[in-house]
Amino acid sequence: MTKYMAPHAMPRPGAEPPPTPARPAFDRKNMVLRVSTALVFAVFFLSLLYWGGGTTWGNLAYFGLMGVSILAGVRELTLLGRKMGFNPSLYAGTAVGWLLLMHFFLASKAPFGERPLDPDILPLWLALTFGIGFIHFGALFFDQKREQTLPSQAITLMGALYMGLGLGFQQRIFMLDSRTVSNTGGRLVLALYIIVWLGDTGAYFVGSFLGRHKLAPKVSPKKTWEGLVGNYLGNLVGAWLMKVTVCPDWTMVDVVALGLLLGTVGQLGDLVESTWKRSAGVKDSNIGMGIPGHGGMLDRVDSLVFAAPALFAYVHYVHGLG
Amino acid sequence: MTKYMAPHAMPRPGAEPPPTPARPAFDRKNMVLRVSTALVFAVFFLSLLYWGGGTTWGNLAYFGLMGVSILAGVRELTLLGRKMGFNPSLYAGTAVGWLLLMHFFLASKAPFGERPLDPDILPLWLALTFGIGFIHFGALFFDQKREQTLPSQAITLMGALYMGLGLGFQQRIFMLDSRTVSNTGGRLVLALYIIVWLGDTGAYFVGSFLGRHKLAPKVSPKKTWEGLVGNYLGNLVGAWLMKVTVCPDWTMVDVVALGLLLGTVGQLGDLVESTWKRSAGVKDSNIGMGIPGHGGMLDRVDSLVFAAPALFAYVHYVHGLG
Repeated sequence: MTKYMAPHAMPRPGAEPPPTPARPAFDRKNMVLRVSTALVFAVFFLSLLYWGGGTTWGNLAYFGLMGVSILAGVRELTLLGRKMGFNPSLYAGTAVGWLLLMHFFLASKAPFGERPLDPDILPLWLALTFGIGFIHFGALFFDQKREQTLPSQAITLMGALYMGLGLGFQQRIFMLDSRTVSNTGGRLVLALYIIVWLGDTGAYFVGSFLGRHKLAPKVSPKKTWEGLVGNYLGNLVGAWLMKVTVCPDWTMVDVVALGLLLGTVGQLGDLVESTWKRSAGVKDSNIGMGIPGHGGMLDRVDSLVFAAPALFAYVHYVHGLG
Repeated sequence: MTKYMAPHAMPRPGAEPPPTPARPAFDRKNMVLRVSTALVFAVFFLSLLYWGGGTTWGNLAYFGLMGVSILAGVRELTLLGRKMGFNPSLYAGTAVGWLLLMHFFLASKAPFGERPLDPDILPLWLALTFGIGFIHFGALFFDQKREQTLPSQAITLMGALYMGLGLGFQQRIFMLDSRTVSNTGGRLVLALYIIVWLGDTGAYFVGSFLGRHKLAPKVSPKKTWEGLVGNYLGNLVGAWLMKVTVCPDWTMVDVVALGLLLGTVGQLGDLVESTWKRSAGVKDSNIGMGIPGHGGMLDRVDSLVFAAPALFAYVHYVHGLG
């Protein structure tokens, strides 16, 4: 989900249980903080997309942004795991997430300017197997909670892959290029965020005003079928807006296909993160610090981490990019 | 580890806690069963390596063998997880393990004869992200034990990657080819098994007769420093034997490097699987059925799953294969 891009003060849509008194989502001070943070981020992020696309400094700045987000997301998953009594490793999970991100950076066309790098510098199989070995072997030396080491290692690995691949594909998309449209990567990242975010927004409004029929009460008590339809409508409107603005080479088939594809994996991704939080007994992935006024990192990226590889797969196989 | 290849009736070396009365490893009937199974397997496996290398039927037979082994290994990891109170999915874990194996099959040079396939049919990034989505999204619909769904999904994912990548790289090695030595893949798979197995054997004999100084009592009570040295000696002897027989293009540098590399990741892999079993409170990964007379699949592959990608990385980067 993409409160990153959208400075506004509405409560978080859909997936979450109702706010408790302990979570003052509507107070004035929090709203100011929330809007300020979002504005600062939006200015920074849109500038990066507009001016940084296709440049070495832009690639590196995006790498830094993804790297910090991976650290924050792995940290939250680590804390969720600790709350459940396990002992996942923040260090190993973050290091392996960064290693995967590094693969996507180096595998992109010409990360440092014109000349493409050797794709064999850090192929995915090497980053992945080295990372898996690092997590499992590291636990031999550092995991003192031996009676839970099997689930602890598994959660470390899951967090590294969730954040490392999810945000790694964003990096890969940002660094995409095509001959027909300049700054392809920046445009596609904007499309990723807008399609997913308009879906969230559509789900929130349609669900709030028309929601009657529960979708999956056990998985997510507040989700309704009406919200689901609103989500897809938002996704489709978002994809169409992108076609008429920054992605002029898209056809209406692309609009419908991407709206439905990103809408589906985005909503499922949102539900997955909800079930993780619920199993750990928390309502907000932000345990401890988070993005000021915006809760946790996992709540922000839960749809994007699945939508990014789906978008990459679509433009790769259908449009021949990458 | 590779009791596959080595018909003999000795107790399992190194990693395991001392046999309990409930595990009749030394009785005559079990010994006969163990030797018989090993002989049957050795004849089948060596035939496959000798005659099947570089042939379509050989590639498919190896694929079938790896596929069955992935099912067996994921099943044991699933049962370990269930014993600890989690609810990993045997179906999702196996399906994703097979999907990863399919990637390695299709990514190899000319799986069906002379003509190479398009590497874009099933690249690793697609198999991996599709598989991860399959596990997480599937749990939304099928995991009824919602209060443990975070660790359950993590264990499903870990098992799929452990078996799918570990045995997938064996498939990849089997299907390697070079211009200088015929049946490269079959020779390298034999080298993988012999180097790892002679390491196990060396650790067992040196550790049993000379073992005095405990290596890591908390991780594996029976391991000694002397056994560690014996393991490396066995690895080095195995690599040298391979050089003078089936891998004539190896130098002495290759022998030393591969002995140390496979010895290190093999022993660490063995320890990792031991800690998983210990955390689940079992002594033998074979919960329920297993390989007749040989215990569980995980106990057989714990060193190989890490040694296979290490061997592939070595021959890829140093010898330019693949």
